[in-house]
Amino acid sequence: MASNEARRFNTIGIIGKPHHTAAGETMLALREYLLARGHAVKVEENVGASLGLPSRELTSALSLGTLCDLVIVVGGDGSMLHAARALSNFNVPLLGINRGHLGFLTDVTPTGFRQKLNEVLEGRFIEENRFLLSASIVRHEEPVAASEALNDIVLYPGEISKMIEFEIYVNEKFVYSQRSDGLIVSTPTGSTAYSLSAGGPILHPSLNAIVLVPMFAHTLTARPIVLDGDSRIEIVISASNRTRPQVSCDGQVHIKVAPGDSIHINKKREQLWLMHPDDHDYYHILRTKLNWGSKL
Amino acid sequence: MASNEARRFNTIGIIGKPHHTAAGETMLALREYLLARGHAVKVEENVGASLGLPSRELTSALSLGTLCDLVIVVGGDGSMLHAARALSNFNVPLLGINRGHLGFLTDVTPTGFRQKLNEVLEGRFIEENRFLLSASIVRHEEPVAASEALNDIVLYPGEISKMIEFEIYVNEKFVYSQRSDGLIVSTPTGSTAYSLSAGGPILHPSLNAIVLVPMFAHTLTARPIVLDGDSRIEIVISASNRTRPQVSCDGQVHIKVAPGDSIHINKKREQLWLMHPDDHDYYHILRTKLNWGSKL
Amino acid sequence: MASNEARRFNTIGIIGKPHHTAAGETMLALREYLLARGHAVKVEENVGASLGLPSRELTSALSLGTLCDLVIVVGGDGSMLHAARALSNFNVPLLGINRGHLGFLTDVTPTGFRQKLNEVLEGRFIEENRFLLSASIVRHEEPVAASEALNDIVLYPGEISKMIEFEIYVNEKFVYSQRSDGLIVSTPTGSTAYSLSAGGPILHPSLNAIVLVPMFAHTLTARPIVLDGDSRIEIVISASNRTRPQVSCDGQVHIKVAPGDSIHINKKREQLWLMHPDDHDYYHILRTKLNWGSKL
Amino acid sequence: MASNEARRFNTIGIIGKPHHTAAGETMLALREYLLARGHAVKVEENVGASLGLPSRELTSALSLGTLCDLVIVVGGDGSMLHAARALSNFNVPLLGINRGHLGFLTDVTPTGFRQKLNEVLEGRFIEENRFLLSASIVRHEEPVAASEALNDIVLYPGEISKMIEFEIYVNEKFVYSQRSDGLIVSTPTGSTAYSLSAGGPILHPSLNAIVLVPMFAHTLTARPIVLDGDSRIEIVISASNRTRPQVSCDGQVHIKVAPGDSIHINKKREQLWLMHPDDHDYYHILRTKLNWGSKL
Repeated sequence: MASNEARRFNTIGIIGKPHHTAAGETMLALREYLLARGHAVKVEENVGASLGLPSRELTSALSLGTLCDLVIVVGGDGSMLHAARALSNFNVPLLGINRGHLGFLTDVTPTGFRQKLNEVLEGRFIEENRFLLSASIVRHEEPVAASEALNDIVLYPGEISKMIEFEIYVNEKFVYSQRSDGLIVSTPTGSTAYSLSAGGPILHPSLNAIVLVPMFAHTLTARPIVLDGDSRIEIVISASNRTRPQVSCDGQVHIKVAPGDSIHINKKREQLWLMHPDDHDYYHILRTKLNWGSKL
Repeated sequence: MASNEARRFNTIGIIGKPHHTAAGETMLALREYLLARGHAVKVEENVGASLGLPSRELTSALSLGTLCDLVIVVGGDGSMLHAARALSNFNVPLLGINRGHLGFLTDVTPTGFRQKLNEVLEGRFIEENRFLLSASIVRHEEPVAASEALNDIVLYPGEISKMIEFEIYVNEKFVYSQRSDGLIVSTPTGSTAYSLSAGGPILHPSLNAIVLVPMFAHTLTARPIVLDGDSRIEIVISASNRTRPQVSCDGQVHIKVAPGDSIHINKKREQLWLMHPDDHDYYHILRTKLNWGSKL
Repeated sequence: MASNEARRFNTIGIIGKPHHTAAGETMLALREYLLARGHAVKVEENVGASLGLPSRELTSALSLGTLCDLVIVVGGDGSMLHAARALSNFNVPLLGINRGHLGFLTDVTPTGFRQKLNEVLEGRFIEENRFLLSASIVRHEEPVAASEALNDIVLYPGEISKMIEFEIYVNEKFVYSQRSDGLIVSTPTGSTAYSLSAGGPILHPSLNAIVLVPMFAHTLTARPIVLDGDSRIEIVISASNRTRPQVSCDGQVHIKVAPGDSIHINKKREQLWLMHPDDHDYYHILRTKLNWGSKL
Repeated sequence: MASNEARRFNTIGIIGKPHHTAAGETMLALREYLLARGHAVKVEENVGASLGLPSRELTSALSLGTLCDLVIVVGGDGSMLHAARALSNFNVPLLGINRGHLGFLTDVTPTGFRQKLNEVLEGRFIEENRFLLSASIVRHEEPVAASEALNDIVLYPGEISKMIEFEIYVNEKFVYSQRSDGLIVSTPTGSTAYSLSAGGPILHPSLNAIVLVPMFAHTLTARPIVLDGDSRIEIVISASNRTRPQVSCDGQVHIKVAPGDSIHINKKREQLWLMHPDDHDYYHILRTKLNWGSKL
């Protein structure tokens, strides 16, 4: 999980939550800090423009992936999800600075970022990879839409108070049919987000596993099931549904599906590199966020 | 998961639930069937004696591991747990015939065993390995007791209605302290047993994972956490406990622990080989046992 | 709960699931049976017309309440919910015949209805009352919409994957604020429906109680809370919500609400009279529907 | 719930957690305060002797019930449970001072007790009644043991990792049979204690209701069921159990039962009077203890 060899961070990207005063202030301070340290800095163009930065420093989110040796995300875990989907095709590590509340993915505090970044930029960091899920919607045997998620892919009803009827297959084997409010397909990264609210288990980030969490299933024996991360998951929307369900990726990208469609979900080949300060402690974040007991 | 090469089953062992009429009848019929097919048969000595079998066919449970090319377990999943702990040090596959109720581990029905065994003995079978957990109790830095489990290792209070206070460490990292009725540490095999009743997720048998399930924790945010199967888990019984908790392996072996003790739990190196008929379908068993929806 | 005095059922109403072959056949057989027994029969006009009944027998759903001494509902529990909201202002008892699957509210089977109705019409029946909830939406201190529910009033997000932020008050006392996917406010009657899928407790039908069940709350300590049935419940939709949540009554009536609105929920004064055959057994229905253990 | 008429508190009793330094200090300060205000004071004899109080002030716990106009309990909720079982036969109100941690039953803080008690003793208080449960063990149609509980009556296995098989009857009607680790029968008062850890709902203290919460039931559809508070509940321990289960009242009184025994549980006729300062707010305690959201 750790890789501590010295590494050159010539160009560093900044991306973050737009139209958020505190995040904007941190991004400006971060830019100053990086320039003073002698790094080249590139800022995502929308947020950079709103902060009044010179246009030569601005570039698209995707270009950050090719131009930078490290991209720093300033915001909440939601900002990191956006960045992760944009940048996971590139081999660039991401590091998250939160905007006041500790996040699972944004674990550097805005007040202490200089000291933490000093350490990271001098080679004292922990790097871990997190996988994303790819969703592909297949209609009449043709793919009609696709997207990706770092946290979760959620099947929602098309209308409130209408259950969805669907079948699940894993590696072409029939698992179950279900009538419910939907299904959460979550990565270990997502297991502490929506999936947890829905009664799913916590999956350690190092696990190669995917969890299926039923949402308010009609059958009371429906339970979360944890599958191998390399499983091919297929959700077949029953042709008898009378509404058009939706598929939501990280709660940020929404796709309408139709009765009869299949949703194919697999681990994405390219993974996300997440960089943490050297003293990163996953269990500490868990305890803090979940109010768990500290040492006796 | 499958390995279909023809394989010689010269000697076949029989072990099963003692003092159980239906299981006894199946064992007698099974012995007849195997002898008629020309196999040598060895029967676990206690159950064999109670069935009135000739003493030359009897042997200890452990010897079945060295003498046999296959051991058939007749009974419920509990019988398989006993056999698994006895035989996991040997490289012998186990196959389960249930005594009337479909089991997760005993998936051949007594009425149809001849046809299924014909197939298996001719080389049409699925073989999968399942891992066990080793528990070692450490007191004042000395190991004082140890046991193993195929399903789960459970920490129970020493007296009813007394909570236990303990700390969890994984790979020497502190995870949390907890006051609760105890903790279930379950394998994927055990995830459909006691752990499931306690709100744990189902872990697919192919997963290299262990789940920690808190029992009636005082902190309402306590949740099941799924760890990598190679994790080193340590439960430290707080010195402040005033009763002596118990550790239970598969609900069959019980060990008293003391305040201040550590329970070290790891995956056992030797694995269990489980043999199934060719049409074995894990999800079918899940659906049947949990009353899940069939194909629409 | 029981009231067994003989009682005259001169005019009997029929209402039921429209466009459903099996329900239609049962309604026709039921009409024949009642006419042959000498009762006057009135049929809800939409379903009656689709069954080709003479127009003199047809009347509106509401008129059934004034014209009839008993109204028989043929269909599923959903049909009973529709009928209950239409007829709860009148003092007429309702009796449910299901269309094949045992329902909590429709507990007479279509095959055996003649014998059961013979008993009921001769005075051997159990009568119980069930209360409904009234919901009133208040905007800028003015009521802008209202509806009723026999099962539940559910607050849903206006868009998928958007949490709602709201506050709860009971009898003008602040209870909690919550960010979640919504809230279920259920009667005892509704406690075995959607509320149960969402983790709510079962409330015995005789209880004067209302349960609030949070849906996927962001705070893991959110739990169902059971209140006195005469409580005045107020849900204040936080002004900071950026979407327009919906309120759903029995999953059948939907009302859009706006940030800043209040939803006032109280027990309705008029209650529903539900009539059952003499051998009605609530726990038997529970055991059957939930697959609970029968006598040992 | 409130009764604010002025009332004479001539003699005030003190009872509390023994051998606890902080509780002892508060009891001494409380005694001084009450004597200075001109009240007669009686102290429970065990705790009073350990505090070195003059013997004329000491009396048995039971005598507090006849001698006092108010009894003040100093300690945790566990101390209140003890006092409640001892004093519920008398018509004396109880008021709880906690020893540092806010309790559901001990809601006056030790630092601020003088101001709160000034108000209470001048007639500004809230009084509420809470009911207890009576448990009676019946063997061969004879009662063999009995006890009471303010929080809960819990059926536990006689040995760890052995399920209990039992049947439930309510008002002589069969409800279900179950194989599980046991059953919690809880009052509204107990609904925020052990029952909550076991997945039970919160019952508002004003509710006349009892909740049955299954513990790790073998059947995954087992769910908490809330019954009318006047229900007669009977748990029949199946004769086939091979161990002797235990019944625990408030986790403080334990009774061994035998296979074939019946446990009869009813609301106790005499209720507990609980006295609170005027600004007592049940929901505030809930929010504080459960970390629920405050006003937005």
